[in-house]
Amino acid sequence: MELVSRTEFKIRFSEMDPLGIVWHGNYVQYFEDGREAFGKEFDLNYLDMYQAGLITPIVKLDINYKKDLKYGETAIIETRYIDCPGAKLQFGYKIFRSSDNAIVTTGSTTQVFLNRKKQLLLAVPPMIEQWKEKWKIV
Amino acid sequence: MELVSRTEFKIRFSEMDPLGIVWHGNYVQYFEDGREAFGKEFDLNYLDMYQAGLITPIVKLDINYKKDLKYGETAIIETRYIDCPGAKLQFGYKIFRSSDNAIVTTGSTTQVFLNRKKQLLLAVPPMIEQWKEKWKIV
Amino acid sequence: MELVSRTEFKIRFSEMDPLGIVWHGNYVQYFEDGREAFGKEFDLNYLDMYQAGLITPIVKLDINYKKDLKYGETAIIETRYIDCPGAKLQFGYKIFRSSDNAIVTTGSTTQVFLNRKKQLLLAVPPMIEQWKEKWKIV
Amino acid sequence: MELVSRTEFKIRFSEMDPLGIVWHGNYVQYFEDGREAFGKEFDLNYLDMYQAGLITPIVKLDINYKKDLKYGETAIIETRYIDCPGAKLQFGYKIFRSSDNAIVTTGSTTQVFLNRKKQLLLAVPPMIEQWKEKWKIV
Repeated sequence: MELVSRTEFKIRFSEMDPLGIVWHGNYVQYFEDGREAFGKEFDLNYLDMYQAGLITPIVKLDINYKKDLKYGETAIIETRYIDCPGAKLQFGYKIFRSSDNAIVTTGSTTQVFLNRKKQLLLAVPPMIEQWKEKWKIV
Repeated sequence: MELVSRTEFKIRFSEMDPLGIVWHGNYVQYFEDGREAFGKEFDLNYLDMYQAGLITPIVKLDINYKKDLKYGETAIIETRYIDCPGAKLQFGYKIFRSSDNAIVTTGSTTQVFLNRKKQLLLAVPPMIEQWKEKWKIV
Repeated sequence: MELVSRTEFKIRFSEMDPLGIVWHGNYVQYFEDGREAFGKEFDLNYLDMYQAGLITPIVKLDINYKKDLKYGETAIIETRYIDCPGAKLQFGYKIFRSSDNAIVTTGSTTQVFLNRKKQLLLAVPPMIEQWKEKWKIV
Repeated sequence: MELVSRTEFKIRFSEMDPLGIVWHGNYVQYFEDGREAFGKEFDLNYLDMYQAGLITPIVKLDINYKKDLKYGETAIIETRYIDCPGAKLQFGYKIFRSSDNAIVTTGSTTQVFLNRKKQLLLAVPPMIEQWKEKWKIV
């Protein structure tokens, strides 16, 4: 089963750069908003993981910029769970401009699992195994 | 004795808004940078206070905008300690454009003292009393 | 007639400070989001004003912090038009924590009107007069 | 000749996340600060390029996170020009914690050249060719 979340959002005035387009660094926030929406939709919240003793820092991020977004436009952030072997959490992102459905940005993030002592977990945590089973991810 | 700290800083590309001037919200960061520079110069660091058991949240902030700043310009943040009765920490700020010394922004902040349990302290903490004595603030 | 807009929003992870509460500077963004929502609800959009030749920079901002907000909480930003004589635009803001309706923050902003040449307009622009009439603001 | 710029910077309070470490999105800003310092040191400023009719948007960004940074720490951003065929501008970044010289983050960015009409330039602009010659980049 493929897990994908889609959320529409509005571009804020303060997110622009002096060229009148979204500053490239703000897409990291949009990706985080996408993960947040994904977590809400598919029961994989940061705070739930945190309460289960897991911290999930980003260790890798990449972004490809294809088009730009302007103040007043709306866009859709699509966040897709990418299953991978090993104790990691991977997501792929696509941002579409709402008006013409053009792909504006793509990217991905990789997170690892730490315990509360900030030690890296080498095995997939039970909570995540259960989550995969629940959502029929082999 | 009047305690005033002055630091020069450069306006960043990402701090602009679509009108090509610094977004008004970024001045809150400049004020914080000013407090930081003040704390370094006059031994009143956030981390020292924190280690002494004090948290010093902002409870009041006001900003007056008179001119604007652009990408590539440099500016000076002047941070002045404002002595006041009661268990508070007040600072006044002036931001000058370096090129013509024009006043760009003025403002002030008020902080209170909490202990680590986040309880409001009604008396000036001993650490702060000592700091005032050290710097001859009556 | 009193013009008030209310919008609920979610506190983002990245808006926290190291104390685990919303960094005080981020409230400026919440106020801007409130103005944006107000503009949408009552036909006073930044982009409409801009297209009518008006730029409306913030010249004054004040914020009072009473409680704090944490990641995962939701809050309501209430934005109220404050009529005033002179060529100004004033808004008052209240932010409430959704869970217990506690007032977290209050504040206000003042904007002036500039034309596209960035000259200050001393009279209320016709577009704004018409807007006031439409909404029965004496 | 290898062109590398190194600048030390201080981690700001507001750059932290609730875990008490720099929020991962802020590294995009550190990279931009690195490019800015590089441009100043090696005469390749954004504003000079802009005045020569060139806009240089980021089209690709990747970041690898290895360690974290905390409030009060200082770090060094090292920005390296990576020569490549084609009309692109590539930089590699390394961020070191000042105290122990540990590599905190690595990454790279790719920029393309647009003219003022936002048309993609397929050939390396003369201004950039001259810059390469000046700095003995074959």
